[in-house]
Amino acid sequence: MTTVNPRILPPTPSATNPPLLIGELLESGVRMAGDNQIVYRDLGRHSYRRFRERVHQLAHLLSAQGVRAGDVVAVLDWDSHRYLEAFFAIPMLGAILHTVNVRLSPEQVHYTMEHAEDDFVLVHRDFVPLLEGLHERLPRIRGYLLCQEEEAPLETRLPLVGEYETLLAEQPGHYDFPTFDENAVATLFYTTGTTGNPKGVYFTHRQLVLHTLGEASTFQAPGFELLDRDKVYMPITPMFHVHAWGVPYTATLLGATQVYPGRYEPEMLVKLLVSEKVDFSHCVPTLLGMVVGAEPVASGRVDLSGWKLLIGGSPLTQALARRAHELGIDTRSAYGMSETCPLLTADILPRDIAEADFETQLPWRCKAGVAVPLVHLQVVDESGTPLPQDGESVGEVRVRAPWLTQAYYKETTRSEELWRDGWLHTGDVATLDERGFLQIRDRIKDVIKTGGEWISSLELENLIAQCPGVAEVAVIGMPDEQWGERPAALVVPLDLNAPPTGDEVLTFLKQFVNEGRINRWALPSSIRFVDEIPKTSVGKLDKKRIRQEA
Amino acid sequence: MTTVNPRILPPTPSATNPPLLIGELLESGVRMAGDNQIVYRDLGRHSYRRFRERVHQLAHLLSAQGVRAGDVVAVLDWDSHRYLEAFFAIPMLGAILHTVNVRLSPEQVHYTMEHAEDDFVLVHRDFVPLLEGLHERLPRIRGYLLCQEEEAPLETRLPLVGEYETLLAEQPGHYDFPTFDENAVATLFYTTGTTGNPKGVYFTHRQLVLHTLGEASTFQAPGFELLDRDKVYMPITPMFHVHAWGVPYTATLLGATQVYPGRYEPEMLVKLLVSEKVDFSHCVPTLLGMVVGAEPVASGRVDLSGWKLLIGGSPLTQALARRAHELGIDTRSAYGMSETCPLLTADILPRDIAEADFETQLPWRCKAGVAVPLVHLQVVDESGTPLPQDGESVGEVRVRAPWLTQAYYKETTRSEELWRDGWLHTGDVATLDERGFLQIRDRIKDVIKTGGEWISSLELENLIAQCPGVAEVAVIGMPDEQWGERPAALVVPLDLNAPPTGDEVLTFLKQFVNEGRINRWALPSSIRFVDEIPKTSVGKLDKKRIRQEA
Repeated sequence: MTTVNPRILPPTPSATNPPLLIGELLESGVRMAGDNQIVYRDLGRHSYRRFRERVHQLAHLLSAQGVRAGDVVAVLDWDSHRYLEAFFAIPMLGAILHTVNVRLSPEQVHYTMEHAEDDFVLVHRDFVPLLEGLHERLPRIRGYLLCQEEEAPLETRLPLVGEYETLLAEQPGHYDFPTFDENAVATLFYTTGTTGNPKGVYFTHRQLVLHTLGEASTFQAPGFELLDRDKVYMPITPMFHVHAWGVPYTATLLGATQVYPGRYEPEMLVKLLVSEKVDFSHCVPTLLGMVVGAEPVASGRVDLSGWKLLIGGSPLTQALARRAHELGIDTRSAYGMSETCPLLTADILPRDIAEADFETQLPWRCKAGVAVPLVHLQVVDESGTPLPQDGESVGEVRVRAPWLTQAYYKETTRSEELWRDGWLHTGDVATLDERGFLQIRDRIKDVIKTGGEWISSLELENLIAQCPGVAEVAVIGMPDEQWGERPAALVVPLDLNAPPTGDEVLTFLKQFVNEGRINRWALPSSIRFVDEIPKTSVGKLDKKRIRQEA
Repeated sequence: MTTVNPRILPPTPSATNPPLLIGELLESGVRMAGDNQIVYRDLGRHSYRRFRERVHQLAHLLSAQGVRAGDVVAVLDWDSHRYLEAFFAIPMLGAILHTVNVRLSPEQVHYTMEHAEDDFVLVHRDFVPLLEGLHERLPRIRGYLLCQEEEAPLETRLPLVGEYETLLAEQPGHYDFPTFDENAVATLFYTTGTTGNPKGVYFTHRQLVLHTLGEASTFQAPGFELLDRDKVYMPITPMFHVHAWGVPYTATLLGATQVYPGRYEPEMLVKLLVSEKVDFSHCVPTLLGMVVGAEPVASGRVDLSGWKLLIGGSPLTQALARRAHELGIDTRSAYGMSETCPLLTADILPRDIAEADFETQLPWRCKAGVAVPLVHLQVVDESGTPLPQDGESVGEVRVRAPWLTQAYYKETTRSEELWRDGWLHTGDVATLDERGFLQIRDRIKDVIKTGGEWISSLELENLIAQCPGVAEVAVIGMPDEQWGERPAALVVPLDLNAPPTGDEVLTFLKQFVNEGRINRWALPSSIRFVDEIPKTSVGKLDKKRIRQEA
């Protein structure tokens, strides 16, 4: 132990200045709530104490299979206790957890697994056929560990090393995890853009620990109060999608009861919400629409009042927030993206708004909210100058925070587009108001440019969604010789047999023109009724495909 | 430290991987609650927005006085808005904040200011006479900035550069703060031990940011709920004492209303508690005793019900916790020390205890509690082996966390005693129970060793304090030829004119012998009645002086 002059910097991470590693989050949860439970569907449950032991057993299992620090371990599983164990055991070994997006096409799955240089794979029985078609083109992979619920025999060409539960049961309950640099990469996954191949984003132990601490502080804020030791949490955002927004880590830090629903079937989700008395979930608006539209909920047979739901991925529309409110569901918004770990803002309502009635709160509940601790956020014009915080000036959102991906993995050109002038550029256009509340107006590339003016496709969608008889809507810009672009709407009617007419929708929209909320030239030039609107693998409107098909 | 080989090595701190600096905490508070207030006694108040502006102005003021990164700036002030501004502006400049313990003797103050190599000083008018006697022996100091409430002229030999408010008013409202390594030292202060000179402890930006995030998560835990944007906070632990436990930083992160009471006069404290509707404070047990003993509180003229009070520094006795409960005050315990920033544990009650009646909760409320996130804590025997978590095995507490002082400043020998085998040794003996709850039994050096057995001086004090007619008590070990040591008690009677007798106290204690709570040989060999018990500068029993005087 040397004496340090404080005028000089203390030593780099050491026993006296320990690194921020993901294992710390697990220890905190077990201390806070050793008896709280991890629940998997209607199939099983165990305590946090047992959860820790299983993480140690999984580490032994993986070590025995030759997994070493620096290796990449891919997971293809439904949301489960196993996936949560992988969230910890793999990075705690110093290996990198690759959460594979199982909703991508087989060729895209192959691309991501080859690009990530996966060494070992945890694969659910349901995805074995997918990997059977790929594994010969993934020669680097040393072994596949089977995840399953049933015990039924499985005939497969995939070189399985064994079954998760069977091998786990043979392992000792304590693993002596290594200590290492907090800047070691812990997780890696791929996000799909509008063009080109999926892009890899990656996060270090330090980043995930800091994101967790920031999220814990935010989720416990007054009026928000989404998550703590006494709450029951169930994600409805897949664990392969930005680590389910990092919430499984935060829930573990705080010791919350955690419920993993397997695949997202509305019946199972509703069943678990009721039987496990779930307090808090998070999802994209599409999934909220699916839950409130599910028969037992819509018919009032099932009571979801008191359920808190954080919405992200796409902005929450007022129509959907109101429908949820009628069912007693408390919706809030947050904003972030795959590149940002993801949490950037959360709509912790100002005190006067929190005390007002629901109709006053409604627009606030649909905004993205205020930047969370340690996040710097600006809305800038094209020259990078911050715009006035007046709730009206529209520009691109750029951010700094200690939990942003350092780059797209092995992608120089696209990384240079992402990180410019020391800021991560989100590609979203938004306004910022006097209270620091962010409101996302559109993706830069979805903005419709008509006659030199900008129209927000999102705002138009929000208004059309309020029209009677409309279930869902997407607005895109269509090339136009005279105006450059003109807005075109795709509408899914509530009742396919009795859709509203295009004129009815236009008449409905004209009231907003009269109220000055939109300009006359923002009225769509075409309104087309369809049965379904294409979605991306994470449930957002797939505007790339919509544009292609139009 | 194991070397790992992550495929991707991110860059060292840079725009994409920003450092953890204290300035981040300020930005978060202003965003969360720009209109919330910082209150100084009954003299003034301003918003968080103005608070940030004043921090920027103070930075300009100090820069103009030649303060540079790496300089040490001492503060001798009562708890005030100024002190809070110094908590931010000085470290944000890259300078080191030295919070001077103004309760030390003049010679000790001189020792700490010379040892810290102070370059510039903020001094309250009340401490000008003290520094007049010292400044010729502190030639390194370049200037003194006067802090005061009144405008009265001041005759002094101290080379003042001006007055805080006057100079502040002349400064621009925006300072372009530098970015630097998070391992730069931010704060430095001195702690008095039982022997030798005061020892300097110091904390980096990284450590203070992580401590703040850990404290924020803990203070918002269910049942604890001490601090958030909608709460009013007033410290009753001096800001020179471990940054008032770091709570001003945490309150700022969360945007809580903050009330600074100046010096700790019971009348002013009680007045502010009522007029500002204070929700949360923290203090040592002595100060709680002072508040509940103050006339307006004791007489019931003033209602403090609903006030939440976190007790640390010394264990809370059941007698005092019960007295507070009768007044509607909600007391909780936390544990830490100057060397640990300080937070290590907090008594977040297990759910079943939190739902039980007060008498069941009482012993839990007087324990130190469970280790907070990112803290590793062990109770070990003399060979360093962790003891069973059975609530009975007594050993020394040792800790690891990302916010422990790296060493005693410029003290090799004493630093090597503090840090051994990669653990910080607290010098406290304690038990740990099955639920991970820590209970401090004594300071190692205060434990009484009699006939080969250990007696906890703290436990004896706790029992004697419950005896009718006893106001305060200290127990020390007195050398004894036959037994090695024997316990001796010093008792302050409630009524000096009608003290209980020694026999009455012994008879009272014998019930605990009969109940098996203490052994017969733990009964004190001598009981002496005194008017007062010596205390340290932070209000703890000064056992060193008590032993010397005995």
